[in-house]
Amino acid sequence: MSYNDTFLRACRCEPTEYTPMWMMRQAGRYLPEYRAIREKHGFLEMCRTPELAVEVSMQPVDLIGVDAAIMFSDILISFPGMGLDLEFAKGEGPVIHNPIRTAADVDKLRVADPHEVTGFVMETIKILRRELENKVPLIGFAGAPFTLASYAIEGHGTRDYENCKALMWSDPDAWDQLLTKFADTTIAYLSAQIDAGAQAVQVFDSWVGYVAPRDYEKSVLPHTKRVIDEVSKKGVPVIHFANGATSMIDLVQQAGGDVVGVDWRLDMGKAVEQIDPRFAIQGNIDPVALFATDDELERMVVDILEKFGTRPGHVFNLGHGIHKTSDPEKARTLLRFVHEHSRRIRSGA
Amino acid sequence: MSYNDTFLRACRCEPTEYTPMWMMRQAGRYLPEYRAIREKHGFLEMCRTPELAVEVSMQPVDLIGVDAAIMFSDILISFPGMGLDLEFAKGEGPVIHNPIRTAADVDKLRVADPHEVTGFVMETIKILRRELENKVPLIGFAGAPFTLASYAIEGHGTRDYENCKALMWSDPDAWDQLLTKFADTTIAYLSAQIDAGAQAVQVFDSWVGYVAPRDYEKSVLPHTKRVIDEVSKKGVPVIHFANGATSMIDLVQQAGGDVVGVDWRLDMGKAVEQIDPRFAIQGNIDPVALFATDDELERMVVDILEKFGTRPGHVFNLGHGIHKTSDPEKARTLLRFVHEHSRRIRSGA
Repeated sequence: MSYNDTFLRACRCEPTEYTPMWMMRQAGRYLPEYRAIREKHGFLEMCRTPELAVEVSMQPVDLIGVDAAIMFSDILISFPGMGLDLEFAKGEGPVIHNPIRTAADVDKLRVADPHEVTGFVMETIKILRRELENKVPLIGFAGAPFTLASYAIEGHGTRDYENCKALMWSDPDAWDQLLTKFADTTIAYLSAQIDAGAQAVQVFDSWVGYVAPRDYEKSVLPHTKRVIDEVSKKGVPVIHFANGATSMIDLVQQAGGDVVGVDWRLDMGKAVEQIDPRFAIQGNIDPVALFATDDELERMVVDILEKFGTRPGHVFNLGHGIHKTSDPEKARTLLRFVHEHSRRIRSGA
Repeated sequence: MSYNDTFLRACRCEPTEYTPMWMMRQAGRYLPEYRAIREKHGFLEMCRTPELAVEVSMQPVDLIGVDAAIMFSDILISFPGMGLDLEFAKGEGPVIHNPIRTAADVDKLRVADPHEVTGFVMETIKILRRELENKVPLIGFAGAPFTLASYAIEGHGTRDYENCKALMWSDPDAWDQLLTKFADTTIAYLSAQIDAGAQAVQVFDSWVGYVAPRDYEKSVLPHTKRVIDEVSKKGVPVIHFANGATSMIDLVQQAGGDVVGVDWRLDMGKAVEQIDPRFAIQGNIDPVALFATDDELERMVVDILEKFGTRPGHVFNLGHGIHKTSDPEKARTLLRFVHEHSRRIRSGA
């Protein structure tokens, strides 16, 4: 098997014979092989143990055949090193026991040194690069400043962000200081990942879709843009995924990077119209499409591929993370459809 | 106090001196006066007891001063009459104990006669109209076919809609039959509300923002459009609120009606560009703005009002339901800002 760099070429808008694909949360609970390991180990333990993180990162490469690996980790992994007391409570998702609510809380927060607090991630990346030799490229990742701040402030998942937005509006100085600390941490963290061997990085702004465009432009975008601009200097493709933010995709692009991730709420035809062609586009099938019949799944794949067209610069992905009850066989079928039809469309057949 | 029909005139794109405002979920838990009643009565009991429903519907009119009342009820209120075993479990939201999963389940579902199964709603509307005489107009409402179907299929709130979409994709005939039954029920139900005295109606498609545009156009829009077209024949304004669907606002408009509801994810400047001027627009401040300082709240209000401009046809509203921890005093402040600044802007001062 020869090295498959289709993903990296698509990120750089270079021609490829077919459209490469990976899936957000591809190293995850839909795989029985993942669940077998997860049963024996805590989630954070898996993140912090390079041997385990490497093993589950490799699973979708070996079992599904995706065109890129993404390291197994969590966007909140730097929190303990910043002074935030993070726990993954069973069935509840992440909980921060000392959430940030005041300017004094912001003051106490530390910018984390990635080697000191997440050395295990760099170790994971180094091992993964050896394991992936002659296979596919490796993606590193981090959370965007807004998404990190929203978790730090709310202390848990939410759909409301009342405390987060109240701080943003009532104390813009504390807000900017907070996002600056998360941005500084993220810049150092992603740079260290790239130094360790990550060949592309994705910045996840998972919850920014709950922010109004006016607030995004003023209070979020400058921080995301600084992260992406700084990390871009390292010379590997930067993917920016602002989940749920397709109504303000014009603003999202202003953050820069090489690849704009698009969720499934924006038709690919419109994404191509609205996103500057200097960006590659990543996306954007409904993750629930993996519960459709093969025929319908195939129609959805063809629809997206045809709407993207034959120009370079498409990385196929789900519009959000793969659901934990998805059938791995269906993910393989999706990959086959993407490869077959994109090869056909791109060859002009 | 003379009768205030500003809301109805704005719905019909007729000139008004100021922008009228009401709030989704304005008869709700943020009001201590509501909670005092809710403590003594079950949620469905309140919906089914006209005296109680009337009392809480009047609260925001009397306590906040909104320009329209909306009857207190729930979008799932017809479910028991259709054969769906609905319960509002404490702290869990609605649960349907016999969810629809197969074509046979769809067959068994009954189209509900609104007078037979929701006579208490018509009674509530008749009393409310008397109570509201010389005050403000009354809005009725119902769920859109997709949102009703998604609850009926999933059996509870979700963010995934795996079963719902699987049925839509795997058995389009059963899907169409199901949405036709919900559409028929909704057409009869809204018509009966108008006959009883509702002076405008809102169709809530609360969860359609999780549907990809291609699926919306093919499998959802025709049913919503039929509801709105049929109900429009009754001659009162129809408001269509497709929550979270601003990335496909071009398709949403094709469903017709008089007023397009817009959530806070779409900047009002873009909403005005993208929505045909034959529609009035309802929206769209971030509901969490009620947690902002007065100064920031005022800036957000002015931003939206100025972006809408001086043409007729704006109904101010939150971009989603008011949060239960909102301060009623802040809601009054919001109303004051909307009235004062829209009067200033519309007078050209």
